[in-house]
Amino acid sequence: MSQSPPRGRVSESTFRVRYAETDAMGIVHHSRYLPWFEIGRTDWMRGAGLTYAEFEAMGFYLTVVEVGVRYLRPARYDDLVTVRTWLAEVRSRALRIEYEVVDEQGSVLVTGFTSHICITHDGAPARLPEILIQAFEN
Amino acid sequence: MSQSPPRGRVSESTFRVRYAETDAMGIVHHSRYLPWFEIGRTDWMRGAGLTYAEFEAMGFYLTVVEVGVRYLRPARYDDLVTVRTWLAEVRSRALRIEYEVVDEQGSVLVTGFTSHICITHDGAPARLPEILIQAFEN
Amino acid sequence: MSQSPPRGRVSESTFRVRYAETDAMGIVHHSRYLPWFEIGRTDWMRGAGLTYAEFEAMGFYLTVVEVGVRYLRPARYDDLVTVRTWLAEVRSRALRIEYEVVDEQGSVLVTGFTSHICITHDGAPARLPEILIQAFEN
Amino acid sequence: MSQSPPRGRVSESTFRVRYAETDAMGIVHHSRYLPWFEIGRTDWMRGAGLTYAEFEAMGFYLTVVEVGVRYLRPARYDDLVTVRTWLAEVRSRALRIEYEVVDEQGSVLVTGFTSHICITHDGAPARLPEILIQAFEN
Repeated sequence: MSQSPPRGRVSESTFRVRYAETDAMGIVHHSRYLPWFEIGRTDWMRGAGLTYAEFEAMGFYLTVVEVGVRYLRPARYDDLVTVRTWLAEVRSRALRIEYEVVDEQGSVLVTGFTSHICITHDGAPARLPEILIQAFEN
Repeated sequence: MSQSPPRGRVSESTFRVRYAETDAMGIVHHSRYLPWFEIGRTDWMRGAGLTYAEFEAMGFYLTVVEVGVRYLRPARYDDLVTVRTWLAEVRSRALRIEYEVVDEQGSVLVTGFTSHICITHDGAPARLPEILIQAFEN
Repeated sequence: MSQSPPRGRVSESTFRVRYAETDAMGIVHHSRYLPWFEIGRTDWMRGAGLTYAEFEAMGFYLTVVEVGVRYLRPARYDDLVTVRTWLAEVRSRALRIEYEVVDEQGSVLVTGFTSHICITHDGAPARLPEILIQAFEN
Repeated sequence: MSQSPPRGRVSESTFRVRYAETDAMGIVHHSRYLPWFEIGRTDWMRGAGLTYAEFEAMGFYLTVVEVGVRYLRPARYDDLVTVRTWLAEVRSRALRIEYEVVDEQGSVLVTGFTSHICITHDGAPARLPEILIQAFEN
C-alpha cells in the first residue's frame, strides 16, 4: 500500500469524533475511518462541481473494489479531525482516491486509499462518464 | 413505554458481542441494540415461514415508525447474548414487535419495542398482505 | 413517549448524511439517529460551558437508561440535516434530553428523547455534580 | 496487498448479514467487513485456547496498524456468509492475520488482512507475551 503525497486539488472535511465511533480501547474503532474517507470523497466531488448524489441519480455507482488504511495515531471522542482527500489516479473505468486524517495540530493519524470502478445500477461495468471526467479535470 | 411480558411464539437469536459494538465506556453502545432487535425480527419472521427478504422481494417494507429501549445492565465484548422476540400487536396496517436481550445467565439486559407500518417500495402505505397475516397466525 | 416542544436553550448541530448511514431501503437506518442525538447533546453541553469529554475526565458518565424515537420522514444520503437539542428535565441523579431532527426546509424528520443517570467510572450511581448543574442553569 | 492462500489452522465464523449492514446500493457497506474480520480473529483466538477478552484482561491490546481489503462480489441482507481466518505471520512484536469471506456456495466475496502490534493498556509497545505465542503454536 504505497501512498503518494497529496497532489492536485485537496479537499478538507473537518468534524468532531462521535462517541459512537469509539470502542472499548477508548479510541476510534479502525473500521470507522472508511465512512470518514467517504465523507472526504463526497466533499471532494462536491468541490469538483458534480456531487456523488447527482452522479448516482444519473444511473451510476463508483463501487469500492479495494481499500487500504494505515493507522499511525489514534483519534478520540470529541477530537476535531480533518480528512484531506485527493484524486490519485483516473483511468477509463477506474479511479483511486487517497486520504489523510489529521488532528487539530496537523499530525497525521491515518492514511489510506480507496479504489473504485464505475458500474451502472444493475451492476454492469461502465466507462467513467464524460461529465465525471470533466468534473475531475476542473 | 410499557412493555408486555413475552407472549405467543418467542424466537431466540444468540450471538456474541462484537468488539466494534463497544464504545469508550467499555460497554455496548446503546444504539447497537437496534440492529440486534432487527436480527430478532428477522429470525422471528423466518420462524413464521416468510423471511423478511422474501417479503421485501414482494414489493413491501415494514418501515420503522417508533422505537423504545430501556437499558438495565450493560453487555460487553465477547458476551454471549440472546435476543428474545415476539409479536405484541397486529393491526391492518401496522404491527408492534417486542424484545428482550438477556445474557448467558438469563438476566435481562435490555427491553424494547419497534412499531412498523407496511409500505410499498415507492413509499405508499399499504395493508399488511394476507400472506404476512397468515404467517403471523402460524 | 410524549415529547415536549423545544424549550430553554436549544442547540443546533448541522451536518450531511453519510452514505454509510443509509441502508438497503435507500434511507438512513433507524438506528443511526441515536448517534445523531449524541452529537446533539455533545454540542448542547459544549454550549453550556462544560464539554462531555471534560465531564467524563472528571470521573463520571451520563449513561443512557432509556431512549425513544419517532420516525416521521426519512433522511437520505447527502441531505443536510440539523439536530435540535434541549434539556427537558433535570433531577438530582437523572436528566432527560429531547431532540428533533429537521431537514433543510425545517420539516421535522424524527423526534426523540434520551434519559440518563449519572454514574462514576466504576458504575456506581452518583448525584449530578454541582458543576454540571451550574452549567445546565446557564 | 498480496494475500497468501489460507494456511495453518483456518477458523470459520458463519452468520447472516444484518439489515443494518447494508447501504443504499442494496449491498453490504464496504466498511462492514472490518467488524466481520474482527469476528473472525475473535473465533480464531478462541480456537487457539486464549480468547481475546482474556488477553485484553491481562493488560494487552493487539492494536490494528494496517488493513487491506479487496471486494470481489457483494453480500446482501440475510445472506449466510462465512469468514475464514488464519494467522499469516507472527513476529516478536507484530502479527498479520488474513481473511476470506465466502458465501453459502463457497464463492469468495472479499479477501483481506489486518496487521497488529502488541501494546499495553497505556499504549506502550510490548513483545507478544509467551502465552500468546504458545496459543498460536497450538
